[in-house]
Amino acid sequence: MVDDRRGEPLFERLCLIGVGLVGSSIARAARERGDIARTVVAHTRKPETLARVRALGFADVVEADPAEAVRGADCVILCVPVGAYAGVMAAIAPHLAPGCVLSDVGSTKGSVIRDLGPLLPPGVHLVPAHPMAGTEHSGPDAGFADLFRGRYVILTPVPGGNAAAVERIAELWRRCGSMVERMDAATHDKVVAIVSHLPHLIAFTICGTADDLAEETREAVLKFAASGFRDFTRIASSDVDMWRDIFLNNREALLEMLARFTEDAQALGRAVRWGEAGFIEDRIRRGRRIRRGLIERKQA
Amino acid sequence: MVDDRRGEPLFERLCLIGVGLVGSSIARAARERGDIARTVVAHTRKPETLARVRALGFADVVEADPAEAVRGADCVILCVPVGAYAGVMAAIAPHLAPGCVLSDVGSTKGSVIRDLGPLLPPGVHLVPAHPMAGTEHSGPDAGFADLFRGRYVILTPVPGGNAAAVERIAELWRRCGSMVERMDAATHDKVVAIVSHLPHLIAFTICGTADDLAEETREAVLKFAASGFRDFTRIASSDVDMWRDIFLNNREALLEMLARFTEDAQALGRAVRWGEAGFIEDRIRRGRRIRRGLIERKQA
Repeated sequence: MVDDRRGEPLFERLCLIGVGLVGSSIARAARERGDIARTVVAHTRKPETLARVRALGFADVVEADPAEAVRGADCVILCVPVGAYAGVMAAIAPHLAPGCVLSDVGSTKGSVIRDLGPLLPPGVHLVPAHPMAGTEHSGPDAGFADLFRGRYVILTPVPGGNAAAVERIAELWRRCGSMVERMDAATHDKVVAIVSHLPHLIAFTICGTADDLAEETREAVLKFAASGFRDFTRIASSDVDMWRDIFLNNREALLEMLARFTEDAQALGRAVRWGEAGFIEDRIRRGRRIRRGLIERKQA
Repeated sequence: MVDDRRGEPLFERLCLIGVGLVGSSIARAARERGDIARTVVAHTRKPETLARVRALGFADVVEADPAEAVRGADCVILCVPVGAYAGVMAAIAPHLAPGCVLSDVGSTKGSVIRDLGPLLPPGVHLVPAHPMAGTEHSGPDAGFADLFRGRYVILTPVPGGNAAAVERIAELWRRCGSMVERMDAATHDKVVAIVSHLPHLIAFTICGTADDLAEETREAVLKFAASGFRDFTRIASSDVDMWRDIFLNNREALLEMLARFTEDAQALGRAVRWGEAGFIEDRIRRGRRIRRGLIERKQA
């Protein structure tokens, strides 16, 4: 099914709906390799972004009308915040070509099936995907062809979906340099809730907690931000729309992980209050053990 | 009072009680510069550490008996976990020379005055200090002379204390390359509670929360630990004894910050549950604003 020869494109016409950091990086990777798509179509709503994407020149076609953008495409990838999926799908669904593979790059996967599934035309194959790659920056200028190199991409194929379509999306990501894994959407949403969404919620929160301190302490906090707080704020500098949508679209898994984490933090706080040294030591040792696990997997 | 000429040592005999990462780094800085102390005495309890410190050769005298170590020293710096201060002080107090400056490097400062104050002999000057420098590593092998270069050191002088002694400790840290700031112990303890102790408590906790997940999810967590979780575990790989003692000795400020943070995290969780997009966006924006504040201060 998959053609591995360089130069023979995987898709004839790849349409990217949204060309921010991730979308523009896919376009740049496709342009650099040549064997991902013969033609790359970029769609974006905002006039100023359209002009910028034309100037940057990473797409063969830049199209303001979503219906026009997807016309004749054999692959469409949604690269907009997950909260925009339902609206985008309403606009493009009637214009998707039969046999088209519809994929995405969103950080929540249950919501994709919920928002795209009901509008999916017969003969269009949905393959939800989540490239675990990103930077602190956003917008079409922030993208680069190597963004996905060496990073995991998780596919969450829909039950009873088209196996050949899944394999073509897997191959697209392998050609971008990624390692492809598959899991069901529910497991994906739990895993990213704890490895990514909860850490972001915590980082946004602690910045606010610091900001609420009395003037004198707050000034000192900014001055003496040691490595702990600094690492937290690095996470907290992320894109507003994207993270609002992620939180709202992975609600259940995120709230479950927040509840578990809060219980655990309260238990550690209780041990601090009552001077339970053994309990505190045990919690610190577990942190070190997980850290070692990451180092052994070369993730740290 | 302070002699700025290179070669003229600030102290005749500097005694370091504990020569782990921080203590051994002070010894190395003193040896490298020559103008911090004429003689550096290192004390450590454990026989294997004693042998290692002798082999590393950064101290002029290595002494197993704390009473003997402080004898004739005009400066003694406690470089052990803060939980050990009271015990150490009981052992050394009767042997401290009149006029000696007694300082420390602990991360909690109210506890220092609580634990050392009552045993302080007349004529010995207490100057609590906290160099905000460290690495993930510990022990005498981990130290290096430049550890404090460009980092803040906070002094929390005791009310009515000896001004000349405070200035000599300030000068010691300036000669180690640090920027010296002064504040009262209570403000210090609040500031470090939020910039350092709470982030560590959170990091230890989230590692435990992940470790408690069902087997399948836990394996995936280790595999897909994205940057958020990875940054958290970097913090969580810290020294067990040191962090247990910090938590137990900054109890009140830490529990207050944990309570504030928990309220704020619950409020954000509630906004996620009820789909309050505006509230979520506001929290994310505040995080970005604090981040920008740090960047402007060149702390990020």
